[in-house]
Amino acid sequence: MAEAARLGDAARGTTAPNPNVGCLIVSDDGDVVGEGATAAGGRPHAEAIALEQTGDRATGATLYTTLEPCNHRSVRGPTCTDLILASGVRTVVAAIQDPDTRTAGAGLERLRAAGIELRIGPGEQQARSSMAGWLTRQALGRPRITLKLALSIDGKIALPSGESKWITGEDARAHVHLERAHCDMILVGRGTLAADRPRLDVRLPGLEERSPRRALLSRGEPVEGWEMLRSPHDVFRLHDVNDLLVEGGSATATAFLAEDLVDRILLYRAPILIGEGRQSVGYIGLDAIGDAHGRWEARDGRQLGIDRLEVYERIRSTAA
Amino acid sequence: MAEAARLGDAARGTTAPNPNVGCLIVSDDGDVVGEGATAAGGRPHAEAIALEQTGDRATGATLYTTLEPCNHRSVRGPTCTDLILASGVRTVVAAIQDPDTRTAGAGLERLRAAGIELRIGPGEQQARSSMAGWLTRQALGRPRITLKLALSIDGKIALPSGESKWITGEDARAHVHLERAHCDMILVGRGTLAADRPRLDVRLPGLEERSPRRALLSRGEPVEGWEMLRSPHDVFRLHDVNDLLVEGGSATATAFLAEDLVDRILLYRAPILIGEGRQSVGYIGLDAIGDAHGRWEARDGRQLGIDRLEVYERIRSTAA
Ligand SMILES: NC(=O)c1ccc[n+]([C@@H]2O[C@H](COP(=O)([O-])OP(=O)(O)OC[C@H]3O[C@@H](n4cnc5c(N)ncnc54)[C@H](OP(=O)(O)O)[C@@H]3O)[C@@H](O)[C@H]2O)c1
Ligand SMILES: NC(=O)c1ccc[n+]([C@@H]2O[C@H](COP(=O)([O-])OP(=O)(O)OC[C@H]3O[C@@H](n4cnc5c(N)ncnc54)[C@H](OP(=O)(O)O)[C@@H]3O)[C@@H](O)[C@H]2O)c1
Ligand SMILES: [Zn+2]
Ligand SMILES: [Zn+2]
Repeated sequence: MAEAARLGDAARGTTAPNPNVGCLIVSDDGDVVGEGATAAGGRPHAEAIALEQTGDRATGATLYTTLEPCNHRSVRGPTCTDLILASGVRTVVAAIQDPDTRTAGAGLERLRAAGIELRIGPGEQQARSSMAGWLTRQALGRPRITLKLALSIDGKIALPSGESKWITGEDARAHVHLERAHCDMILVGRGTLAADRPRLDVRLPGLEERSPRRALLSRGEPVEGWEMLRSPHDVFRLHDVNDLLVEGGSATATAFLAEDLVDRILLYRAPILIGEGRQSVGYIGLDAIGDAHGRWEARDGRQLGIDRLEVYERIRSTAA
Repeated sequence: MAEAARLGDAARGTTAPNPNVGCLIVSDDGDVVGEGATAAGGRPHAEAIALEQTGDRATGATLYTTLEPCNHRSVRGPTCTDLILASGVRTVVAAIQDPDTRTAGAGLERLRAAGIELRIGPGEQQARSSMAGWLTRQALGRPRITLKLALSIDGKIALPSGESKWITGEDARAHVHLERAHCDMILVGRGTLAADRPRLDVRLPGLEERSPRRALLSRGEPVEGWEMLRSPHDVFRLHDVNDLLVEGGSATATAFLAEDLVDRILLYRAPILIGEGRQSVGYIGLDAIGDAHGRWEARDGRQLGIDRLEVYERIRSTAA
């Protein structure tokens, strides 16, 4: 299942509005005979791709999928439940049930009734993490929102003059490009657009095609080539975005944090002190230190050259 | 030698103005027969303590010491070189030479002339790190200065109101007390004294006696129980302090950083966002991002409960 989640994770940022499912088929005698991830745009599904690859060798095989196979008929093709029933697969292992009420258990029921052995739950955590964007959209009605910050030790994003090139080094910037490739949309505020004219594209060999859609947070005039968000709350209108990356600047970061619309922080920390400078985050509605606690959890920490990546995730009682 | 450095390190903060040397004696047949670290106040020396413990079993033994044995006669006792010559020790391993020109090589020459086998250099890095305070004083004429900061993710030390209790948790605060026990002196600015009335003592079982001297940075009236520093530059007058811990607040941190009088930063990072709040560091003379680079190196990082300790060291071409 770890491998299925890895396959699905690689497709993150390309499958919206569909989930980025990963699927692996292992034959009776233990060979991997099929692999698939949801294709760009959301179709074909991961299971369809893996079954197509497997062909005859599906007889008696075990199919691992990060998400319960779909069962709601579509004009765009047969359901994965139908494909599995026709394939000869003996066992289906699904990491999580589909939160989509159109499927939710009905497909599993049909598989079980047809004598297929079912296991639900193995690798659930990895699967949830690989599909976090889509799952957040199912649970909260908006994309998973990741805030990227590049900060000094003392939390500054620029000198008083606005100079911010470069706080972090090449390895950290390459990592940002990798994260961009795994998002459906990137957003900046108009201040950053005006100051930096950022291209927000993916400059990594082999991933140039993965540059996501660009959005602008502004109450002002639309700008060609940019989708407009008039307020952070407009994320609830983004029905075809699983993962949204907010790249700044400070006013934009503050606006999203103040509305509690950040699920994850990617913080690239440079080993420098700036002192007097522009702060990363302004007033976010906090009036007591006690209230600041229990909201964020450090989930990952990693050296990127001389910089360090810190990943924080929002602790929500109603976990997505 | 690692064990000798560990012994010396445990005595850090108690031996000034002397170095906190560690010494281990291993007999001919491989048993540890003596251990010592410089005693509180600087005497007896580590080698004297270890040789006293070893007694007769010194014959043919190997003596490991983090610093070249002393050779400058003192009214307070015989030199360690004399003690070693009288002991029967066959081999002396010293991690580093004494930068003190009164000894510098002369003791080693006498040992060699008497037929003792000498090795200089093994474990040098650990030894340097254990005696960093004293070595800094030898090299720069002032204590090693450690700046402690307790910061949020976004680099704030307090709310706009000044409220800062508590940013970090118990494990981080216990670690601060451990660091205090290993310093000779702790300093705060008058703003912190007025706001927090800090005791700056060591509240750790068994280490209560290790509470260091307290100093106040202020141009104002002296305060009973506090040694006064009228400016950061006064650290050059502290001839009996190897390790100085600067605990804040922001104006004090800024003053020391602006004068390039910080060698090490102990940063306790809480997983919270404060947003609008008091910044940790003000103007430190920096006018271009490029100039901020190449000054600090991350040397250690460690989880302390939900907080994280980040240790940065000043990169100096004239390394202490
Ligand atoms: N180190 C880093 O990680 C990093 C990353 C990006 C940028 N930066 C730096 O940050 C600086 C720009 O930051 P900034 O704070 O000045 O600008 P910004 O956040 O990029 O943009 C501010 C603009 O965003 C719009 N906006 C903000 N909040 C809004 C809300 N609640 N509803 C609707 N629109 C909203 C407004 O646009 P309208 O006025 O058009 O309505 C506002 O003027 C630049 O110097 C850039 O180089 C640093
Ligand atoms: N989170 C943390 O790590 C942490 C740690 C400690 C304190 N704090 C907080 O920080 C706040 C206090 O910070 P602060 O910046 O207001 O005060 P501060 O740095 O503690 O003290 C400022 C005072 O120090 C003296 N001073 C500063 N620079 C000097 C210089 N170059 N030469 C001589 N004297 C100098 C001056 O005293 P005179 O006016 O008497 O000359 C000045 O008024 C408090 O709220 C405290 O709770 C936070
Ligand atoms: Zn399907
Ligand atoms: Zn001695």
